[in-house]
Amino acid sequence: MKELRIQTEHHQYPVYIGSKLRFDVGSMLNKQYDRVLIITDKNVEPLYLQEVLQSFPSSSQVSSFTVPASESSKHIDVFYQCHTYAMENGLNRQSLIVALGGGVIGDLAGFVAATYMRGIDYIQVPTTLLAHDSSVGGKVAINHHIGKNMIGCFHQPQAVIYDTDTLSTLSNQEWRSGMAEVVKHAFLADEVLLERCFTLPAFPSMERDVLEYLLMRGIEIKANIVAQDEREAGIRRYLNLGHTLGHALEAEAKYVLSHGEAVAIGIDFALFLSQQHHPSLTFPIERYRKWLQQHQYPTSILHDYEITNLVERMKSDKKNDQHDIRMVTLNEVGDPTTVAYKVNEIKEQLLVYKKEVSRV
Amino acid sequence: MKELRIQTEHHQYPVYIGSKLRFDVGSMLNKQYDRVLIITDKNVEPLYLQEVLQSFPSSSQVSSFTVPASESSKHIDVFYQCHTYAMENGLNRQSLIVALGGGVIGDLAGFVAATYMRGIDYIQVPTTLLAHDSSVGGKVAINHHIGKNMIGCFHQPQAVIYDTDTLSTLSNQEWRSGMAEVVKHAFLADEVLLERCFTLPAFPSMERDVLEYLLMRGIEIKANIVAQDEREAGIRRYLNLGHTLGHALEAEAKYVLSHGEAVAIGIDFALFLSQQHHPSLTFPIERYRKWLQQHQYPTSILHDYEITNLVERMKSDKKNDQHDIRMVTLNEVGDPTTVAYKVNEIKEQLLVYKKEVSRV
Repeated sequence: MKELRIQTEHHQYPVYIGSKLRFDVGSMLNKQYDRVLIITDKNVEPLYLQEVLQSFPSSSQVSSFTVPASESSKHIDVFYQCHTYAMENGLNRQSLIVALGGGVIGDLAGFVAATYMRGIDYIQVPTTLLAHDSSVGGKVAINHHIGKNMIGCFHQPQAVIYDTDTLSTLSNQEWRSGMAEVVKHAFLADEVLLERCFTLPAFPSMERDVLEYLLMRGIEIKANIVAQDEREAGIRRYLNLGHTLGHALEAEAKYVLSHGEAVAIGIDFALFLSQQHHPSLTFPIERYRKWLQQHQYPTSILHDYEITNLVERMKSDKKNDQHDIRMVTLNEVGDPTTVAYKVNEIKEQLLVYKKEVSRV
Repeated sequence: MKELRIQTEHHQYPVYIGSKLRFDVGSMLNKQYDRVLIITDKNVEPLYLQEVLQSFPSSSQVSSFTVPASESSKHIDVFYQCHTYAMENGLNRQSLIVALGGGVIGDLAGFVAATYMRGIDYIQVPTTLLAHDSSVGGKVAINHHIGKNMIGCFHQPQAVIYDTDTLSTLSNQEWRSGMAEVVKHAFLADEVLLERCFTLPAFPSMERDVLEYLLMRGIEIKANIVAQDEREAGIRRYLNLGHTLGHALEAEAKYVLSHGEAVAIGIDFALFLSQQHHPSLTFPIERYRKWLQQHQYPTSILHDYEITNLVERMKSDKKNDQHDIRMVTLNEVGDPTTVAYKVNEIKEQLLVYKKEVSRV
């Protein structure tokens, strides 16, 4: 088992990464909780719920609530149902919520914990590769019909407990989704990690020690940035690399496209913009595009949507100041920056980019 | 104009109290906001909205959203509508929300600000006496059908701007409601303030300087307690004096009884319990009960409800640990404490109390 400590402004918590940890969730916590509510989804429930449930000592009264396994669970009605269930099961301010699942469950259960009786403890037990990103940093939220993650807050977990075995049941699309965020962290901070990503075989067949390495480094890079800027006032914005276009694509594709697949395309566009600013530098764009093809990222999907609609969605991104669209780009690998674009500039750049990738 | 600084763990903000301040809200802030959303209610809108709106410089784009003037506005649907309206009006992370109204508006608008794009600035512009209590301390929430204020968090305002003129339009019931919290603060910390309360004429006819004094001292006492315990882990519980029975009564009376009227009865019960623990001390119970009668608090309402139902509601109070009901009582005026009661004990005490007050 590997262990990391995450330091935020007013709080510190451990991340454990290893095999079979789901059997020890309850006993790994340094507090006893009289009442525990596990929030999970319909896919994860039959696989791991019983094991996590039984990991708690018999002195804890543990209940569980299962929601649909899709982005639609980040709906305000589901959020309210979770609260109802928590109250009906007698959760109080000294109780614990466990987020057992991927990013959707982490965001939903974390926001329930953040707002239940004005905030109670919760832990993350991620079951996807993508959740290595969302389970660290304390950002929790539900969706609004106008935009993703628009209703939420910051609420740090008490611990993140990552059982690597649970990743064996992921689909190819989920592997792609998670690897996009690993690659993002590599582009932001670590050329060695990037090289390791580029030389991977088919994702599901990667060795356990490689997987643990990718998770550790991904989480470390994210945690370092979050530690310096918990509330996204400054450099935390860099974590948004690939996300401005990514979120717009994801919303246009009505969540058919996975989060990471959309971000992977967004990163490609960010690299394209970076090259406009630094034509003399060599970014590994070609290698990145080959890697996207090799692992069957749906790169051609950009052609299915109107640039105008995408730009409209990019305008409403939470990270924008006032009227410009703020994009994260790279000066080089490991050296991110942000650039503000006028709406029309982004539109033009997207048109040029679309032409360029259609030639590939 | 009087000014107070409120110090919380990670944040400091001013409280301004004085006449005609509603005309200066926009210019009193030490930040410029491009976009501002004023959330108010149907009663306050025709009286003060335009004046507050026009207090902002023309460089700010100010919109407003009006909700029904009742506790029912702390409903999750209204909360969601506020978010929709904020998005449609282009509010971003650098925008401001203004809570213009009483406690309902402060709680609702504050919780919208706390969760809009994971938290933006807001200010309180209270228009009731009761809001002297709720506008300070950063507690924001909406109701769940199972209990009041069950969904919420802590989010400190940037400023509280109290225009004492706006209190001239309050009903007698609203005066009673607000004065109950002033008296609560007096019982917790200030015998002189308590004496001043006991000698007041009819509330609406009190002089301006008396009103400013009551507001200042009430806010100061609350702020001192909150400064020591922002997240309600310890002594902030004392502010709950009168609220355990108060909330239960309020819920049983389906919000017909005002918050403070219910709390006033709850304080009487807390004094009764305090006397059980300290039979040798003289609490001013008789003076307090006369004061309640003099100002027409609906003290007989306790007889309309079943003790069993009230106790059921008291059990679900957020402040309880595990299985006991935790009550705030007094060792003497200015020296609060908490006592945990078994459910059956509280039931018995309530029955004895009911008999005692029916004899008065």
